[in-house]
Parts: sequence; structure tokens; C-alpha cells
Amino acid sequence: MTAIDAQRLLGRIRELGAVGRDGEGRLIRLAASDTDKQGRDLFVGWLRQAGLDVAIDRVGNIFGIWQSPDREQAPLLIGSHIDTVIDAGIYDGCYGVLAGLEVIETLKASGFSPSRPVAVAAFTNEEGVRYTPDMMGSLVHAGGIDAETVLAAVGTDGSVLGQELARIGYAGDREPGFLKPHAYLELHIEQGPVLERESVPIGAVENLQGISWQRITIDGVANHAGTTPMSMRNDAGHAAARTITFLLDRIKASNAPTVATVGTIRFEPNAINVIPSRAVFTIDLRDPDEQRLQAEEAALAAYLEQLATENLTVSVEQLARFEPVIFDLRIVELIEAAAKNRGLGVRRMTSGAGHDAQMLARIAPAAMIFVPSTGGISHSPREHTDDAELVAGANILLDVAAQLAK
Amino acid sequence: MTAIDAQRLLGRIRELGAVGRDGEGRLIRLAASDTDKQGRDLFVGWLRQAGLDVAIDRVGNIFGIWQSPDREQAPLLIGSHIDTVIDAGIYDGCYGVLAGLEVIETLKASGFSPSRPVAVAAFTNEEGVRYTPDMMGSLVHAGGIDAETVLAAVGTDGSVLGQELARIGYAGDREPGFLKPHAYLELHIEQGPVLERESVPIGAVENLQGISWQRITIDGVANHAGTTPMSMRNDAGHAAARTITFLLDRIKASNAPTVATVGTIRFEPNAINVIPSRAVFTIDLRDPDEQRLQAEEAALAAYLEQLATENLTVSVEQLARFEPVIFDLRIVELIEAAAKNRGLGVRRMTSGAGHDAQMLARIAPAAMIFVPSTGGISHSPREHTDDAELVAGANILLDVAAQLAK
Repeated sequence: MTAIDAQRLLGRIRELGAVGRDGEGRLIRLAASDTDKQGRDLFVGWLRQAGLDVAIDRVGNIFGIWQSPDREQAPLLIGSHIDTVIDAGIYDGCYGVLAGLEVIETLKASGFSPSRPVAVAAFTNEEGVRYTPDMMGSLVHAGGIDAETVLAAVGTDGSVLGQELARIGYAGDREPGFLKPHAYLELHIEQGPVLERESVPIGAVENLQGISWQRITIDGVANHAGTTPMSMRNDAGHAAARTITFLLDRIKASNAPTVATVGTIRFEPNAINVIPSRAVFTIDLRDPDEQRLQAEEAALAAYLEQLATENLTVSVEQLARFEPVIFDLRIVELIEAAAKNRGLGVRRMTSGAGHDAQMLARIAPAAMIFVPSTGGISHSPREHTDDAELVAGANILLDVAAQLAK
Repeated sequence: MTAIDAQRLLGRIRELGAVGRDGEGRLIRLAASDTDKQGRDLFVGWLRQAGLDVAIDRVGNIFGIWQSPDREQAPLLIGSHIDTVIDAGIYDGCYGVLAGLEVIETLKASGFSPSRPVAVAAFTNEEGVRYTPDMMGSLVHAGGIDAETVLAAVGTDGSVLGQELARIGYAGDREPGFLKPHAYLELHIEQGPVLERESVPIGAVENLQGISWQRITIDGVANHAGTTPMSMRNDAGHAAARTITFLLDRIKASNAPTVATVGTIRFEPNAINVIPSRAVFTIDLRDPDEQRLQAEEAALAAYLEQLATENLTVSVEQLARFEPVIFDLRIVELIEAAAKNRGLGVRRMTSGAGHDAQMLARIAPAAMIFVPSTGGISHSPREHTDDAELVAGANILLDVAAQLAK
């Protein structure tokens, strides 16, 4: 059975992971920064060494294309991103991009004759740390936002993306979306604990959760903590705690795949002996099923409406809302078959995080392959996947790519 | 029936309330500050005008003493404080001190012949904003802490109380506690909503709540909000919300006079898409009954212990703990009788806030008289009590003082 070159892949992951370290050794390659340029230059060098055609579009997405004899066929695209968060690990994104390149080189070297081009992509600003929105390059590629809008994006440091891309030499000449894929594959670390806990090496990602982000503000009346009887209170903090308890208890008890998180909270005036006049908290609600996501949103809304009958004022801001993405069942089955064929355990799963694949799924059949993340940790220098697991995942990508390009 | 001079009392409350305004008109007379000196100078001037002996002790407590023919008798003491919080109202503390002076002047002018000295006191640093602990001067007077300790107290601005008292000329020569009262009376605004809601002008304060302040820290594990199934979470924020809901729901449903407030809360890392690894919140628990206060503390502790079985770590700091104070029943009955005698509604009640009276109750029979606070508001420029209510309260203080000093 053909296999990828494990040492070449692992060596490149480490070499790219060494680029963009600050004085404290932290890995920081924010989109279109000087360190992102260094990472891009390294990647493009590898594309050229591999004999691929390099194409860069106007929003900085990089493509390495292995042309096939039949150039008119829509290409198989394998992609992810090489920008990072602040103090990142070395696998998130980079693993998928470098495995895509590895797969192409392996297929080339093996004498495989593709029926269509095979390309690897590194999409701009997936992390969204410097510029909003995240998954920007793939969103533009899929036609979800126009190039001019994102090129005018102003970063957290006041920079303008278009100017920064030009400055680092990655404002390309290709029109975004020029490459219409036949299918899209993305290999990624899970960033969650499921595969590790179940000792399953391969995840066949069949869908990606819908996301609802809300900010809830409850207004009551500040009063003296000692002198105000419980029956005379309009305690915004108590109402917030009840709402959080209601929602999280409910979802935990449902045994559905729904997840809900209250990650931020703030009371005003925030004094030990003053009843909170205001509580502000956020809700991150996710579900792979749009109907269930709407049902949980409705249950929360009904609970908040009932608070209004208790002399509390509630306001809700929707901060973000994405519908779930259903990946292509045929590709999911190819992933499962490839894993079984290599004697690797595999399970279907849902992606809890956002990925470029969700954007590409708008324009082509797409699916993702996950490998375990130790401790479920990502966006951290403690992000880790064992070498053998990285290699196994890349070999599954190889097999599925060969099926889709044969 | 003898009555106090309403115009003199109300005029002095307003005159003292005009002292210590900042550029924005906010009233700020923090203990031993320049503006506190201005307030003290005004008060001492009034004491001298009234022909009283002025005594100042080493921690700055001010006494105006109307000597009686029998100087050996323990004096009746009427007191409160004239320091303020930041952006204060004009009644908290000052009303009780100035009414005490007013009562003495009224009794003197009426030809009343006291069987014992009658004194009015303004205790240092009741509010505790600049120096800790609060109710400092009365605590020293009652022997609860020694003078050297509090004189060495370092303020929020880095100042040392002893040096500041010397600087403003109020480091007196009397030994704290030199005046051993026969009984202690304190007239104060309620700082709560009960009298106003029930349209009762006079509160006969029979006890003062015990206070338990705790800071709870719950440690769980931070994880990705999207990729971590509900069953695999150690969500410190969810545990905090459940604890708050448990305690406040329980106490609200009990219909006991217990009150509980969670005024402050903080999550870490406090990001919308990260499960909180840590939640820190405070609990302010008060009850006039020590047994019930202990029972609520125990219920909370049991709930927190149960969290430890869910892979969460809980730590509890006791920030403050005061047992309830029972005031002197005979004086409470004198207050009730005086109100009835003047045709004023009266109810027994509990003080939810701390007062100098709770310290004096350690060394003498003591009780307090409350008058209504509009909206229950205090520690705010919106603090308000109608003139007629202020005058009515002072007349009750007059009647009770006359009984205790006759």
C-alpha cells in the first residue's frame, strides 16, 4: 500500500512550526504579518520544489496545483491554513496544508495518474485574530463575501489587510474563486477530546455544528445587600445565575450533541454588599442540527421572557449565527473505508470548531478527517498529536484523495 | 410636649452636608482627610456653642459632654459618625450625630435636670472606605481592637491613619474607652425599604444581623466551547451558577429574614468560546439569628462539598464574620412607648447594615431608632428622608434620652 513520507511531513510541520517565534519562544503568525510572510515563503518554496504551479489570489490565498493531462477537469482541492493564533501550537491548520502537499508529492512519486488536477491550498486569515471575520480566505473563495470588503478590513493593530498583503508580497493576481473544486478535503487535529478518550485514531467528520452566539443583559435594581428583604429585590445577578443554570442543566440532561457555554460574565456595580443592578453574560450554543439549535434558542428566549415578569429588563444581542454544515456523505464513506482498509479505528463525528471546509462545502462536495488532540487542547503550545497519529491521518488523506482523483 | 428645634437640626444637616464637595459636587469626607477635618471643625464648633465639654481620644473619636451635677454617674451616650463614602448622601451618620447634639441642647434649654451626664459622639471611620476595618472608632471605644493597631492602619491611598489624624489636628489626648456609657442610643436612616413600604415612621431596632462574607473559588478545566461534549466538561462557571441559584432560591423560598447576595463574580479566562476554568464569586449572607446564619453557611458548605465529587476544586475564604447583635429590650420598649405617646406608628425591626451601635452594645445596653429611607437608597446622593420624618425621629430620640437620663 502506498504511504506518505512520514519523515518529510513531520520535518516540515516542525520546520514551519519554528517560524514566527517571538522573544519568549511563542509561536505567532497572525495573518499578513511579517512572520506570516516567512511561513508563506517557506510553504511556497516547498510547492515549487515539488514541481507544482503556484497561484496566489487577490486575498492572499495560496494554491499549489498539480496539473493533470486533462487540465479542463475541476481539480480535487486539499486545504487548510497556516496563519496562527497568539502563542499557538504547530498543528492547527499547518498539519492539513502540509499533509495536502505531502499527498500530492506521494501520488506523483508513485506514478499515480490523476484524472483531474490535484491542488493544495493555504487560505488567508482562518484564525481571525488580526482581521475579522475568521475563515476569511475560504469565505471569499466560496463567494460568501467579496474581495474588496475583506481587503479593506482594519486589523486590531490598525493595519489594513490589503496593504499588508501587498507589503509582504502576497496580494496575488488571481481572482478569488478562480479554482472551482470537484471536491474538497481537509485534514485537521480534532481540537476536542473525543477521539483520544475513545482511542479511535480517525474521525470521519460528517457535519459541522451550527453556532449561535448571544450576549444577554439583565437589568434589575441595585440595593443594599443587608437591608433589602429577599422579596423586595430585583437581583440581576440571581436572574443571570438562574438562566445559566436552566440552560446548561437542560442541555446537559438532554444527552443530545448540543453544547452550551457561558464563557463570560460581568455584574454591575460588582460590589460584595450591593445587589447587582446589571448582569451581562454570553452564551455559545452549538448543534449539528438546525432544528435542535433553534429549539434551544427558543427555550432560552422563553426563559428570558418569563424574567421580564419579575421586574427585570432583558435584552439580547445576537453576536454570531451560522447554520450547521452537512458534509458530503460519499466522501465520509470513503474516509471510513480507507480507515478500515488500513486497519484503523474510525468513527463519524461532528466538528465543534469552525474550519475552512465549512466555506468550501458551499461550492463543492466536502468533508474533513480528524486525528486525536491530546487532552483536547488547541490554540496553545500544549497542542499535541502523536507522530504516528499524524502519519496515519495523512495516509487516510492520501487514500481518499487517490479515490477522488483517479 | 417638649420638641427639638426642627429648623436648627435640619439647617445643621444641610450645612454639614455642604462640606466636602468636590469639583463635580460630590460629597466626599473620607476618614481623617482634609474634608473630614472641615466637617469635624464645624461639629466641634457647634459642640462649644452648645456649652458642652469637648473631648477627643487618640483615635479621633469626638465627644461633646453635658456634665450633670453628679459627674460620677456613667453618662448616657448618643452617637454615630460624620465620615462619608465617596459620592455620599447627607444623612447617613450625620443625622444621628446632629440629632444627638440637638437633643442635648433641647434638654438643656427645657430646664431638664439629668441624673447623669449626657454625651454625643462622632466615631472615627465608620464607613471604612479609606481605612479598614469599618466601624473603627466605635470598635476601639468598645475595646474590640487596640488603638495602636488602628493608628498604624494604611489607607487605600497609602496614608497612615495616625499620621493623618495628627495632621488634621484630631489625634486627641484621651484614652479610647475613657467614657463608659450607662446606655447608648443611635438614630439612623434605615438604608432599606421596609419603613417606607409599610408607611411606618419609626423603627425600634431590636437587633442587628450577623454577617458572613465568603469568597468562593471554583476551579475546573478550560476547554473549547465547541468541541467538548457536555459530559466531558469541568465547567467552573456552570458550577458557580448552580451554587448561586441553589443558595439564593433556597433563602428566598424560606421566608426567613435571612438575606443573601452574590454581588461580585469573575470567570477565567473569560472568553466567549472557552469553558471557564475558574469562577470566583462572593457571598454576603446575613441573619439576625446566629443559629439560622450557621445553618445557611452549612447548607452552602454541603453544596460546595458535593461539587468536589464532580472533578471541581472548591476553595472558600471567610472575608468577614460577625455574630448578630441583640439590642437592649428595655430601650427598644422605651422607643416603642415614645412613638405611641407621640401618635407615631412604630415597628420592631432588624438592622441589615452595620452601625457603631453594634460595637457599643458590647459594653452598654444599646438600641437604635430608624426613620424611613426613600427607595431604601443610601450611600448615594439620592439618599433622602423627608424633613418631617427626620424631625419625628429626633423627637423620639429626645424622649428616650430623657427617660434614660432622668
